[in-house]
Amino acid sequence: MIRLYGFWRSQATFRVRAALNLKGLAYEETMLDLDAGEQLTPQHLARNPQGAVPVLSIDDGPGLTQSMAILEYLEERFPKPPLLPADALGRARVRSLALLFAADHHPLVVPRVRKYLAEVLHLDDAQRAAWGQHWLREGLKAAEARLAVEPETGRYCHGEALSFADLCLTHHVLAARSARVEMAAFPTVSRIAEACLAVDAIARAQPLRQAGAPGRAA
Amino acid sequence: MIRLYGFWRSQATFRVRAALNLKGLAYEETMLDLDAGEQLTPQHLARNPQGAVPVLSIDDGPGLTQSMAILEYLEERFPKPPLLPADALGRARVRSLALLFAADHHPLVVPRVRKYLAEVLHLDDAQRAAWGQHWLREGLKAAEARLAVEPETGRYCHGEALSFADLCLTHHVLAARSARVEMAAFPTVSRIAEACLAVDAIARAQPLRQAGAPGRAA
Repeated sequence: MIRLYGFWRSQATFRVRAALNLKGLAYEETMLDLDAGEQLTPQHLARNPQGAVPVLSIDDGPGLTQSMAILEYLEERFPKPPLLPADALGRARVRSLALLFAADHHPLVVPRVRKYLAEVLHLDDAQRAAWGQHWLREGLKAAEARLAVEPETGRYCHGEALSFADLCLTHHVLAARSARVEMAAFPTVSRIAEACLAVDAIARAQPLRQAGAPGRAA
Repeated sequence: MIRLYGFWRSQATFRVRAALNLKGLAYEETMLDLDAGEQLTPQHLARNPQGAVPVLSIDDGPGLTQSMAILEYLEERFPKPPLLPADALGRARVRSLALLFAADHHPLVVPRVRKYLAEVLHLDDAQRAAWGQHWLREGLKAAEARLAVEPETGRYCHGEALSFADLCLTHHVLAARSARVEMAAFPTVSRIAEACLAVDAIARAQPLRQAGAPGRAA
């Protein structure tokens, strides 16, 4: 039995949820309300002392943490269909694109950083919104600069097969849209996000389709 | 021929440099002065449109980017000595610990974020120093909470063999010390950093031993 602990809005949980869907794996997801601090209960801290989601546990095994480490584990244990290319240089490119979103930009807009901006730096709403938009836009710029020119780019980030990079790209685009970032300058990134969202396994993983999202029961 | 483009102070370059040393691979490193903006020249942007280091190129092959993706590539192409455990759960733990430093905390203290804090938010020196110390300390807390209690912790992050996690931990500790973060609350992390720095291949990769560092010719 695969158990996922997540949150409807979490980018990192989205990546894992979409990978589970793409690999056709059945799982049960327990939603924590990060806005209400449910990630900081003793029960969840026992699963992940960092107090973050996602956490994935298979057959009551140890709680696995960090979305990119979980994706690598799923890829090793459930290799079909693959979410990494067959060649080492291709894997290096996919991992680099994935980390461009997941490591360089996503960590700047997570709840603990927003909290610091509000409570320590006393930034007002407009300044906090500008912060979020700035880093989402920087990520889009960096990705567009590569994806628009690198010959390996295809229907998806790397040729015609979905990969880790697409999962990271898709949620970044959803987050940018929801933060009202102007997308006209990022046609390649936008096109790939649309192609990904046309895949049912990815569409079903979307934040707004999860329990607890606006208009959905918790 | 392996060519590395780096910067003496760069955490991400340190990880790659230390891995190359540990695997006994010969390489030539070209140092860019990030403080002087040398990462934004057309020449470097052609290597990495993100304008960042490290970039690694083997036998004039494509420029590989993102330190964690480069480590995975080196591990696949030059597997001895291994820097990942032999079992899938062990690899998941090592990657998770590595990303705790590399993805959750390091991106908050890189030059482009410091620039935003100074130029857009107009934070003064004390506020910028407090920002850096806060996130370095949060990373140390999160790592200590895991490493002090998880049974897999040994001389290094994962048992008795060096891994990706140790490379990420070591530079985080060096950065925290250089930012004058009080280390007394992090005995396990500190002990592991000392064990790592006792390894010549890691000690040689240290920032202060690189060309361009204070007291060293560029």
